[in-house]
Amino acid sequence: MTAPMFTPSAMRVKRSPIERVSALIGQGTINLAGGSPDPSLIPLEKLREAYTQIIEEYGAKSFFYPGAGGLDQLIHQLKKWCATLDIGGGEIIVTSGAQHAITQLCAALLSAQDAYVHENPTFVETMNSFLFYSPQGEPVAVDDQGIQTSILESRLKTRKSPPKLLYTVPTAHNPLGVTMSEERRKHLVELAQKYGFTIIEDDPYRPISKPTRTLYSMSPENVVYVGSLSKALAPGLRIGFVLTTSHALAEKLRDLEQMDFSTSTVNQLVTAKILESGLIQSKLGDLREHYASKMRLMLESLRENGLEPIYQPQDGFFCLVNTNTYAEELLLKAVKLGVAFVPASEFYFDNTGHTNIRLSIGPVDKSLIPEGVNRLVKALNQNEQA
Amino acid sequence: MTAPMFTPSAMRVKRSPIERVSALIGQGTINLAGGSPDPSLIPLEKLREAYTQIIEEYGAKSFFYPGAGGLDQLIHQLKKWCATLDIGGGEIIVTSGAQHAITQLCAALLSAQDAYVHENPTFVETMNSFLFYSPQGEPVAVDDQGIQTSILESRLKTRKSPPKLLYTVPTAHNPLGVTMSEERRKHLVELAQKYGFTIIEDDPYRPISKPTRTLYSMSPENVVYVGSLSKALAPGLRIGFVLTTSHALAEKLRDLEQMDFSTSTVNQLVTAKILESGLIQSKLGDLREHYASKMRLMLESLRENGLEPIYQPQDGFFCLVNTNTYAEELLLKAVKLGVAFVPASEFYFDNTGHTNIRLSIGPVDKSLIPEGVNRLVKALNQNEQA
Repeated sequence: MTAPMFTPSAMRVKRSPIERVSALIGQGTINLAGGSPDPSLIPLEKLREAYTQIIEEYGAKSFFYPGAGGLDQLIHQLKKWCATLDIGGGEIIVTSGAQHAITQLCAALLSAQDAYVHENPTFVETMNSFLFYSPQGEPVAVDDQGIQTSILESRLKTRKSPPKLLYTVPTAHNPLGVTMSEERRKHLVELAQKYGFTIIEDDPYRPISKPTRTLYSMSPENVVYVGSLSKALAPGLRIGFVLTTSHALAEKLRDLEQMDFSTSTVNQLVTAKILESGLIQSKLGDLREHYASKMRLMLESLRENGLEPIYQPQDGFFCLVNTNTYAEELLLKAVKLGVAFVPASEFYFDNTGHTNIRLSIGPVDKSLIPEGVNRLVKALNQNEQA
Repeated sequence: MTAPMFTPSAMRVKRSPIERVSALIGQGTINLAGGSPDPSLIPLEKLREAYTQIIEEYGAKSFFYPGAGGLDQLIHQLKKWCATLDIGGGEIIVTSGAQHAITQLCAALLSAQDAYVHENPTFVETMNSFLFYSPQGEPVAVDDQGIQTSILESRLKTRKSPPKLLYTVPTAHNPLGVTMSEERRKHLVELAQKYGFTIIEDDPYRPISKPTRTLYSMSPENVVYVGSLSKALAPGLRIGFVLTTSHALAEKLRDLEQMDFSTSTVNQLVTAKILESGLIQSKLGDLREHYASKMRLMLESLRENGLEPIYQPQDGFFCLVNTNTYAEELLLKAVKLGVAFVPASEFYFDNTGHTNIRLSIGPVDKSLIPEGVNRLVKALNQNEQA
């Protein structure tokens, strides 16, 4: 092709800093960058068994086209999963991970002239989906209690019409690690009811977080819930889901899934089999404690070096640290010293955050966290001397 | 959600007749509808072994996030696959099947005001992807030699500006079963060069078809190639690919894959392992002959009942038959008699084809083809009597 002309939508989608950094991670690099779960917690033997069992049980049907919307076996198990995690009830549409779910929701609901509110900072990769469909994003600041609903309310009061959507990661926020307080949750849902916008509740960390009420359970008509098995089971299966009480939306999402049919049949059956076994459900407390203990060690290691996160993380994989130095430059030094993190400026949509870095306790081996922080501090010191 | 307002793009995506019909297929229904390969040809034991081997070899890495654009191991094998099938060389972007590839290409290249040419009839499900991005489709008739390039040429001569894209299934057309002649291929590529549009060559049936020159190999700068392993290996893995000589397009497709990351890591590794083993490559001739013999039996069974396809199918799974009766009504009777097919009117974009049906020899057991046709004929006879 000579000089392809990309669409304005496609031009708004940028290579994420997480993808950029993951290309820099070599052997021996301590990975404080990725959002993957701890490899030691992926139940490999159980997965291997499940593939064998599914292929024996379903034969060639394991490898037929999946059709749109998800297989009955998996939908059945995900409904139970939603009950176990107090998410709420409704129609389930299986997706190829939560990122795919967000994209499908934007495809259904967001036109180029539609405004949407999102947290600032927010997860840079899901913002690609929003930006593809509309450039009309409106950032609202997050503090240690979650999105600042008072700021949101004052904006809503002066708007002619409400935004179409509001995107939030209320539990174990990415990249801040904070969890929205009960009070803020109530206020946010009230605002959605009063002004008439739809909240997309992106909740991948729930299975490994302290229990909270979902926004969805507080007001199912105003919230679409997005769940994921990437953190509690394994991201490489690519299984997520949308939960909604709107049959019309569920049907439209099934229509839209015909545009990719991307959710592997055999992986859906394997995930259903593992959910049915109760394996993950029985380990949720252990998973939570495993990641909490890694985060405690991360915070301790930072503190020993005079570093503090911007807010104390409540759950999940991430904390955000202001290094008071240009993060992209720091990254190059850090990678040379054998540690990787994600520069956070692209998580901000108000041209700030250039000195902030996202640190993850997800994929790193716990024993390497102190040395990872040491290397980071070494890079910081080099930077100051330079 | 109270009354979700769907976007105009989402409203243009309709439930495909193939999805509708597959919901009607019960136990005992002879399936002349689906586009799945023959279940007896899916190498189950090899797939089971490959999952075990990959999980042993790669451990938790089998289940990490896939990243965008495909794993190196699979890209390496797909390059060899493209050489084996004389497709041509270039950059490979792995996708979750060919349908996902088409959607990603439309996302990169097609704005709502962009015109595109497609065959008439054409594959209804890929048209969903085009229609989502632009309503400006322009059908051009297909005959037994493929798309009628003389009609296309006369239209191009009178246009102010060329269409942005042209979509074609040149080999084993869906639903007509015809393969574009060498002469038409040359003419089509010349038109793309002269008028400056990009051809999307959707080629899922190549591995099971008689050798032909790809449009891509005739003019890589004007053609983007879309390939699939769904017909030669298994659709449930969801593995397809884009092949292009445009680095800019390859990079943009990688960016856009961040919007779903939908291609399962373990399935990519399993597919690479099976390609590496040479298993499918060694069986391509057998696969081709297996489907050809099923098609011969289908045509014979039709002929015995006084039925002929509109054009003689060359390869692939499909032939199109004019039943001279309203196909949707016929379907209801046929399903009651235990046979399913796809009414073809939605494959047409000029409000014709209401009496045409697409018959498939893909998933049906060969021995059931004559009985399937008998049931179809019974339904036709009932219709005439009614």
